Amino acid sequence: MKGTGIFISLEGIDGCGKSSLKESLHAYLSKYEVVSTREPGGTTISEKIRAMLLDIDNESMLPRTEAILYAAARSQLVEEVIKPALSAGKIVLADRYIDSTLAYQGYGRGLDLDYLLNLNHLCTGGVKPHLTLLLDISPEEGLRRRKKVIPDRLEKEGIYFQEKVKEGYLNIAREEPGRIKVLDGGQDHEIVLAAAIKYIDEILQHK
Amino acid sequence: MKGTGIFISLEGIDGCGKSSLKESLHAYLSKYEVVSTREPGGTTISEKIRAMLLDIDNESMLPRTEAILYAAARSQLVEEVIKPALSAGKIVLADRYIDSTLAYQGYGRGLDLDYLLNLNHLCTGGVKPHLTLLLDISPEEGLRRRKKVIPDRLEKEGIYFQEKVKEGYLNIAREEPGRIKVLDGGQDHEIVLAAAIKYIDEILQHK
Repeated sequence: MKGTGIFISLEGIDGCGKSSLKESLHAYLSKYEVVSTREPGGTTISEKIRAMLLDIDNESMLPRTEAILYAAARSQLVEEVIKPALSAGKIVLADRYIDSTLAYQGYGRGLDLDYLLNLNHLCTGGVKPHLTLLLDISPEEGLRRRKKVIPDRLEKEGIYFQEKVKEGYLNIAREEPGRIKVLDGGQDHEIVLAAAIKYIDEILQHK
Repeated sequence: MKGTGIFISLEGIDGCGKSSLKESLHAYLSKYEVVSTREPGGTTISEKIRAMLLDIDNESMLPRTEAILYAAARSQLVEEVIKPALSAGKIVLADRYIDSTLAYQGYGRGLDLDYLLNLNHLCTGGVKPHLTLLLDISPEEGLRRRKKVIPDRLEKEGIYFQEKVKEGYLNIAREEPGRIKVLDGGQDHEIVLAAAIKYIDEILQHK
């Protein structure tokens, strides 16, 4: 890999299997330098913002404030972690990135999509993934897979919210088929992993 | 006052006398319903963001992240406090608002002014003060007046930073002479207060 690294983001509703897939991909890519991130979070500052976003005491937080807080956390992550890693030719594996904002705050909460695109641009300076793997799964299956007993502020939203987010993700994927690949997250882990690796190998070959 | 209230913001570098002036104006306006705000802060969520912004442990916070966090705090304040108060015909007295972003993050930290104007618009939806009183004071005098023994993260920036912010404020005032009135904050409190009242009375007469 010369000049610049590879930026891969994983997206999908809660319980879609992003975390397990990221772990397996990390192992598959072990001969490369891989930097793993999660959102919101991934830096000291961003993790503090994450704590605020997920705190169930913060019920008075308005949708626009929530979107801007995500943007603040992402801004710090991009400048402190993602851009330096890509400049050093590393692979960045991101658990959530800009599409989460559109899916959750846009399609889920009903904020204007152009507003969120503008906000995304302000917080990333235009840094986009080379490849985005969207794990598509039904909200019911997602809920079944989550093992936590106490849901956080966002997980408390329920099936109807997750359904809107899932449909939002599919809309976003239709608009950028070159970057966003949809995988059926309801399949066995090994099958999902094989499909993900196929897309990643294609990118690695072109570097 | 019919239809909409009056929005007055107070601006200036640290130690310029905003807080004392706000207190006196609050007393002067006692026959009206006055809502007092301060930034960052003013709501439960915004105060939590304020604590993060002023925490001296957060030294890794990058300028862009800082600007976006201010925007998040302001977004919550505008929706939860300022807009409802104005809709109810009240007077809003704000200790800092959009001009602080331009002065501190723009002129002080060197972030792009158009970037910040865009960010300001995203977090306020275009809500602007009818009148802004800028208390102009020398950084040395501002420093002398501050009584705190332990400065917070932003106050630690020093004289050179405050000088850039002061000059930034004056630039902003030159561009919007109709809205922003510059008062010499180095004068006695009573003189500054009388000048401020003159501008406020003009607005009250036109409502």
